[in-house]
Amino acid sequence: MAGHEPYLLEIEAYLAACLGGRDLPENLIGACRYALLAGGKRLRPLLTMLCCECCGGERSLALPAGAAVEMIHAFSLVHDDLPAMDDDDLRRGRPTVHIKFSEAMAILAGDALQALAFDEICRSRVPPAQVATVIRELAEATSRMIAGQVHDTLGGLDPLDSPRRQLEIIHRNKTGALIRAACRMGAIVAAARQRELEAITRYGEAVGLMFQIVDDLIDVTQSPEHTGKATGKDKEAGKMTFPAVLGIEESKKEIDRLHGEAREALGVFEKRGAALSALAEYLATRTR
Amino acid sequence: MAGHEPYLLEIEAYLAACLGGRDLPENLIGACRYALLAGGKRLRPLLTMLCCECCGGERSLALPAGAAVEMIHAFSLVHDDLPAMDDDDLRRGRPTVHIKFSEAMAILAGDALQALAFDEICRSRVPPAQVATVIRELAEATSRMIAGQVHDTLGGLDPLDSPRRQLEIIHRNKTGALIRAACRMGAIVAAARQRELEAITRYGEAVGLMFQIVDDLIDVTQSPEHTGKATGKDKEAGKMTFPAVLGIEESKKEIDRLHGEAREALGVFEKRGAALSALAEYLATRTR
Repeated sequence: MAGHEPYLLEIEAYLAACLGGRDLPENLIGACRYALLAGGKRLRPLLTMLCCECCGGERSLALPAGAAVEMIHAFSLVHDDLPAMDDDDLRRGRPTVHIKFSEAMAILAGDALQALAFDEICRSRVPPAQVATVIRELAEATSRMIAGQVHDTLGGLDPLDSPRRQLEIIHRNKTGALIRAACRMGAIVAAARQRELEAITRYGEAVGLMFQIVDDLIDVTQSPEHTGKATGKDKEAGKMTFPAVLGIEESKKEIDRLHGEAREALGVFEKRGAALSALAEYLATRTR
Repeated sequence: MAGHEPYLLEIEAYLAACLGGRDLPENLIGACRYALLAGGKRLRPLLTMLCCECCGGERSLALPAGAAVEMIHAFSLVHDDLPAMDDDDLRRGRPTVHIKFSEAMAILAGDALQALAFDEICRSRVPPAQVATVIRELAEATSRMIAGQVHDTLGGLDPLDSPRRQLEIIHRNKTGALIRAACRMGAIVAAARQRELEAITRYGEAVGLMFQIVDDLIDVTQSPEHTGKATGKDKEAGKMTFPAVLGIEESKKEIDRLHGEAREALGVFEKRGAALSALAEYLATRTR
């Protein structure tokens, strides 16, 4: 992501270090590190840092919260890949955790990453009142993320809702909630004012849903060689996606609408919103 | 447990209520309730409440923290029962969560219970500084509990340690850490002084290890009809237990020693320690 290299280097360094110095079994830490340090866009911690800066905070303040969000994201991928869930053997071109280690280790490493995420936030140097607020954000987003996964794979949605409404509920929870929380946590550690927190929330909600629609489009329009993972998988699995429900053209329009919404939300920040605006632009137009 | 009925009724009522009013799918909440409201001794929340009272706090202050510890305990049981782990079909005489619902739901309900545990603490009415401290206790104990499960089932212990030392490491983590945290969280929400917190910590460590040794003894000496679960299973699974490593007589002596240690730790509380002392007595002599 253009211009974000310094942030991404800081995030990688922090993630690589933050599992060290804990009195936990080597094999468990090894599996956690394998899951956490597997590349990836680091979108969530990047959002936490940029939202913190946008609200006037020093970006290093946001690193523990950003790392915690990334640990939650990593834990969800490890469990989603399990045989009883999506049953995936590969992720980002490498064997998934249960293939590389064992199914039992994948269950336990995912569980540990969730616990370590909450532990990580407690280690940050922001005041306790903010720590408690940040933890509440993360805990709520984590249960909403799990709710989205339940809706997506095990049902439980209101059958009277339109397919489009059902799809929005799934994605606002499954991907959206954690992206929204990543943004809000950055604002909270920066001690943002109410008006700023509201703007960041609007931005996070727009970007979170947009991210998923772009992802769905990439799945139907790009080759596996291009994306580095199996594509067309959603359709194969019979999953509801935006292109399947709205069509490709309507999905693109929805991306434009959400992109506009994200830009508009940043208005209150004037020039300080430039980095978040550039990130939204990148997320709207990415092809992998 | 004699004299603890009022506490246990409050705990049951709180647990039954605390999963309500959340915007989560019915099927997910149903599986979480099934796992959380399945009976059980409620030892951990009882300890949280008694330790809170012992340190001069009002016991209702300890309910959110106690419920959170019980949610972590319930999540660990759901995941431990999974086919890739202990592969148990029955728990407390009822089908386990993956049998009753599905394996995918058991994974997700366990994950949700962990997230809801951290969320629950954030809802308590103790000051934010204490909330942050309590969360750190719980997060650390949860990762130690998972570490103990890894050691117990997937290895990773130092082979140079004696079997007795290995066994202690397993159990101080697997069962001990959460029981210790249950006690400390009660003391923390009561704003205990340092000397009191140290005494509660000693008590919690002694009682936690003692609880596991008693459990191991029940497994080798009682019939399944008596305990309501399969016995002799530890030996069958080739698991390290105290009776297998120390022998039955030496295990009983260790129980006496830990019971004495727990009583001694309560000395600083004088009469206020009576309820915790009675609980230790019960835990040392229980037969199921």
